[in-house]
Amino acid sequence: MINAGIIGSTGYAGAELVRLLLRHPEVNIKWYGSRSYIDQKYASVYGNMFKLVEDICSDDNINALADEVDVIFTATPQGYLASVLTEDILNKVKVVDLSADYRIKDVSIYEKWYGIEHKSPQFIGEAVYGLCEVNREDIKKARLIANPGCYTTCSILSFYPLVKEGIIDANSIIVDAKSGTSGAGRGAKVQNLYCEVNENIKAYGVLTHRHTPEIEEQLSYAAGEDINIIFTPHLVPMNRGILVTGYANLKKDVSYEDCLKAYEKYYKDEKFIRILDKDVCPETKWVEGSNYFDVNFKIDERTKRVVVMGALDNVVKGAAGQAVQNMNLIFGFEESMGLDLVPMFP
Amino acid sequence: MINAGIIGSTGYAGAELVRLLLRHPEVNIKWYGSRSYIDQKYASVYGNMFKLVEDICSDDNINALADEVDVIFTATPQGYLASVLTEDILNKVKVVDLSADYRIKDVSIYEKWYGIEHKSPQFIGEAVYGLCEVNREDIKKARLIANPGCYTTCSILSFYPLVKEGIIDANSIIVDAKSGTSGAGRGAKVQNLYCEVNENIKAYGVLTHRHTPEIEEQLSYAAGEDINIIFTPHLVPMNRGILVTGYANLKKDVSYEDCLKAYEKYYKDEKFIRILDKDVCPETKWVEGSNYFDVNFKIDERTKRVVVMGALDNVVKGAAGQAVQNMNLIFGFEESMGLDLVPMFP
Amino acid sequence: MINAGIIGSTGYAGAELVRLLLRHPEVNIKWYGSRSYIDQKYASVYGNMFKLVEDICSDDNINALADEVDVIFTATPQGYLASVLTEDILNKVKVVDLSADYRIKDVSIYEKWYGIEHKSPQFIGEAVYGLCEVNREDIKKARLIANPGCYTTCSILSFYPLVKEGIIDANSIIVDAKSGTSGAGRGAKVQNLYCEVNENIKAYGVLTHRHTPEIEEQLSYAAGEDINIIFTPHLVPMNRGILVTGYANLKKDVSYEDCLKAYEKYYKDEKFIRILDKDVCPETKWVEGSNYFDVNFKIDERTKRVVVMGALDNVVKGAAGQAVQNMNLIFGFEESMGLDLVPMFP
Amino acid sequence: MINAGIIGSTGYAGAELVRLLLRHPEVNIKWYGSRSYIDQKYASVYGNMFKLVEDICSDDNINALADEVDVIFTATPQGYLASVLTEDILNKVKVVDLSADYRIKDVSIYEKWYGIEHKSPQFIGEAVYGLCEVNREDIKKARLIANPGCYTTCSILSFYPLVKEGIIDANSIIVDAKSGTSGAGRGAKVQNLYCEVNENIKAYGVLTHRHTPEIEEQLSYAAGEDINIIFTPHLVPMNRGILVTGYANLKKDVSYEDCLKAYEKYYKDEKFIRILDKDVCPETKWVEGSNYFDVNFKIDERTKRVVVMGALDNVVKGAAGQAVQNMNLIFGFEESMGLDLVPMFP
Repeated sequence: MINAGIIGSTGYAGAELVRLLLRHPEVNIKWYGSRSYIDQKYASVYGNMFKLVEDICSDDNINALADEVDVIFTATPQGYLASVLTEDILNKVKVVDLSADYRIKDVSIYEKWYGIEHKSPQFIGEAVYGLCEVNREDIKKARLIANPGCYTTCSILSFYPLVKEGIIDANSIIVDAKSGTSGAGRGAKVQNLYCEVNENIKAYGVLTHRHTPEIEEQLSYAAGEDINIIFTPHLVPMNRGILVTGYANLKKDVSYEDCLKAYEKYYKDEKFIRILDKDVCPETKWVEGSNYFDVNFKIDERTKRVVVMGALDNVVKGAAGQAVQNMNLIFGFEESMGLDLVPMFP
Repeated sequence: MINAGIIGSTGYAGAELVRLLLRHPEVNIKWYGSRSYIDQKYASVYGNMFKLVEDICSDDNINALADEVDVIFTATPQGYLASVLTEDILNKVKVVDLSADYRIKDVSIYEKWYGIEHKSPQFIGEAVYGLCEVNREDIKKARLIANPGCYTTCSILSFYPLVKEGIIDANSIIVDAKSGTSGAGRGAKVQNLYCEVNENIKAYGVLTHRHTPEIEEQLSYAAGEDINIIFTPHLVPMNRGILVTGYANLKKDVSYEDCLKAYEKYYKDEKFIRILDKDVCPETKWVEGSNYFDVNFKIDERTKRVVVMGALDNVVKGAAGQAVQNMNLIFGFEESMGLDLVPMFP
Repeated sequence: MINAGIIGSTGYAGAELVRLLLRHPEVNIKWYGSRSYIDQKYASVYGNMFKLVEDICSDDNINALADEVDVIFTATPQGYLASVLTEDILNKVKVVDLSADYRIKDVSIYEKWYGIEHKSPQFIGEAVYGLCEVNREDIKKARLIANPGCYTTCSILSFYPLVKEGIIDANSIIVDAKSGTSGAGRGAKVQNLYCEVNENIKAYGVLTHRHTPEIEEQLSYAAGEDINIIFTPHLVPMNRGILVTGYANLKKDVSYEDCLKAYEKYYKDEKFIRILDKDVCPETKWVEGSNYFDVNFKIDERTKRVVVMGALDNVVKGAAGQAVQNMNLIFGFEESMGLDLVPMFP
Repeated sequence: MINAGIIGSTGYAGAELVRLLLRHPEVNIKWYGSRSYIDQKYASVYGNMFKLVEDICSDDNINALADEVDVIFTATPQGYLASVLTEDILNKVKVVDLSADYRIKDVSIYEKWYGIEHKSPQFIGEAVYGLCEVNREDIKKARLIANPGCYTTCSILSFYPLVKEGIIDANSIIVDAKSGTSGAGRGAKVQNLYCEVNENIKAYGVLTHRHTPEIEEQLSYAAGEDINIIFTPHLVPMNRGILVTGYANLKKDVSYEDCLKAYEKYYKDEKFIRILDKDVCPETKWVEGSNYFDVNFKIDERTKRVVVMGALDNVVKGAAGQAVQNMNLIFGFEESMGLDLVPMFP
């Protein structure tokens, strides 16, 4: 049994961590951090937690927290963890960071896309990019996990086998991603009001979204060369779910079976990845509330391209679920512990 | 052709006024007031108005405005108009107030339910409650219209004929109202975020909602005695629409035909009120985007009660549409001018 | 470890049984019955179950099934179970019926409200009405459970303590209920299409809904006399959730504390019932995906009435969750086994 | 004043024709055709039309209809019009066909993608593809209009200027389209039920959707060569609206201004096309209920591609609105008559 603290527990990703960890047989949540709701009952912030969580929200004292728990999850705005992390903390606890602070190895790229100075670049090298299906062995040995972004997880996992196997021209990749609104967070902004999002769909952050360099970096590793892609996020009137529809040029004549073989090579034994049956298109509803990533693809003989489709729940596999999966790996628990969630339908 | 100014043009009710007045053959909008968006293009606040409105948002100088226009619509927070209205303004322009400032005749009730001091009670007596189907003749002669609230319009029109004809015990009235989220306004509040409202329904303001005394006052006039009712509003995951389901005890044995006769007595010739066919339940979707109020009822022999159902679009008949209807009456235009909107389905 | 069969496993309630039983530590699903999808893979009907359920849908042979399993769940249209149930079946297996066939003790009332002849009235007497919090001890000894309806569970639990304690006039009860659309089932009907339900709210089945006599019967037991109520269901544009807003006349002067005491008397130790803090209104989102029933109330001094609010997830506590709770009681498992679901938000 | 008949008036596109034509100053609807609802009141099928339409639905006798009206709109399943159209009919009335029967010039392509035999290929040559902004002059002289599909209108108008001006490689075009659910029609299908569509997004008809050859044919004319594209439609949980996000390789170094010049060359004077300001992304909500098509684009220096975004209301500019626009052109009415609809927000 380990103790966990959550800094940023009242955002949507933080709240999902609470939902998952409450039912994790080896974890006890000791600290509900929340700058916005200090001294308020957690259950008054999230009514669903009434009678399930009796705790009060605490301020963000990461140093104090490091003495009390075994693992800290930071579901905080960009720059927070980078500004407070120390060697001392890392010597005491494992840290799973759900922000972007340590995801990008080249600090100048981070500073350019995020527009803030990185306050502790010395830990970037050590941080392990927590995409479990790709970096499992490194994660097990890590002190600091850079938990991947929601769009990023969905985009990388959709293309990874095809890039790794050299089937597609990685520079031709176009990721057209559609996200539920929980991805926009719980901040009070006019653009995220019910009446603004409902009955509406739009692209946003076109060619400038911060998950772009993160996808590029990870797929560059797989490709063995630096690549550039197009990534276009869209806001969809639903709470949860990301669907990636991706496009790329085939480098060679490949059949359905060839591509399938690539996906199976990397994902066949993955508990949380489901390669759908031929011609079945992923639907975000099929993974809602679960840690699954569903994927499929179709080959277009006419244009010599592949269409790839991937779906996940942005607050589970795209955030809190993956964070728990990383924690399980680090502490030697069964990787799926606390994550055997059956998707909810409808 | 008259000139109109809108103070509070960037709230949802104000924006609906713009939508309606843009197509009104006798009105020219001269002033787009908005404290929050001063000097910004109106069309940058409401993208739907691109190429339709070229104007810039202005600050709220009601005195300057009174010199430029024939009618002022105030779609502003409670207390604003009461704090700036003067005899001089009313001598120059007609004012249609979409706030609650002049709706309640007893200033102590206003101050109790709204929790603010009324700054110009001297105009309360003169203000005409702008429920066109009930107060038509007074409206025609008014300088100052207290445009009814959305819940209020729906609740009063649902029960008015039954109360007026003494068919029900007005003190037994229970109004269970369900509203789309545009009724909550465009303010950036966590509770109105997409993810908080979507896939959710709740009551709010139970026994304390400010529309209660407004409904009570108007139905008291109809009843000829002071009455108390229960009013329970609910927030529904949809943009527009209010549905009232109302209950009351029958004072005497009445048939379906008796009740129907009561509704027809008051509503038969009303262009914007539709008494639905027997057993057809109103649906908010059937009035969306239009100035219609749909109504129907059922008599319960078992419990000697009547169930009344009424539906309207809260931003049209419940706000901007009714305001335009009032303006038409005041200026001698055809009452339905600019309001011949066909409900949109789906 | 027991074996379970589900007849009607491809409706929404059946599918939720699958979701819950898949994670129940003492149950193995042996039979996925579905008349509409015979011989098709269950996971092709519900894509969320891909890789989780490998079974094929079977026809409804309840006699064969009775030899194979320990418990049969029937999530079937009204009249099905009544037409096939035999003493022989009940001697072999426990039956939890999610239809209305055995809920109403007076067969003439059943036949009047449902419009069909009851084919096996001989089992009505023995059937136990499976509202666990009320009939727990009888359930433990039952062979046949009449699992309560979704509206019914929410309505009865909302009012039960107040009726039982004689605080309200049970004949004055008005239940204004709002349901998500999964309650309408998975049948392909125009009125349940996305575009018909979305952005819309309506009452339906006013004064004629079949859950009315079921609520009346159960509350009559609590009241100790035959009562009549008004029950008005509404269709809300959301997937899951029922909210009941109820009204009743107080029989005596009672305080908030008096009422609270009544609720606590019956619900204090109930794991799945949460009496919310004073003035907090239940929201369906707070119970989504869980077996909780949330309740609260407010007393209106002005009209001497109480407003009661109750919320549950119609496919969990209102159907499949309660069915599993009943099964747990019958088989002597811990009552909450497999039901420790944390509500999902957002 | 002309008379119009609508065959298929109870589908969503047919119903929108009714909404628009009811307010068209030069049109009188004489015939509400509907195979499914013969002899029923139109307003009982669409409750929003209560008191607005008193007519009864009639069977589809196009020959009888041709004697009574000046224009026939067919909002019917594929193959219907092709199976009944005759020279005699075309000599008597103008026909605006909202189905795909005459959209594709090469009958073998039609038969391949639609899987049905074309029963009257002799009219294909004469039919004018009713994309008003592209084929205006031909439309004015036409007897038979092939009204474009919703996806098609949005896709073609998004790319037309860039293809026509040779700025992009038309064979590299990828159209990722997102549609509201009204595009799926009013047929009672499980996959279009509220609970299946809500809180869900998916691609469908990947590489096989029937609008593909229609887009290809029209863009081939613009390109001056036969082209192949990728078109991926998605189903979005909203009623109305299509958003196209399109991608293509730039053939040459072009600036934002160069591209803008291309769009302005073709669309500057178009009343129903709005080229948005730099960096503003179209939102479907901004065109809801109106005949507008909004468009914008961004150039990606990193990958030498352009991202194009277009939005329209699928039942207005994507169906009924464009049909009325075509009718206006044919009969010499002002092109925007009856179509000056202000988009509704929220």
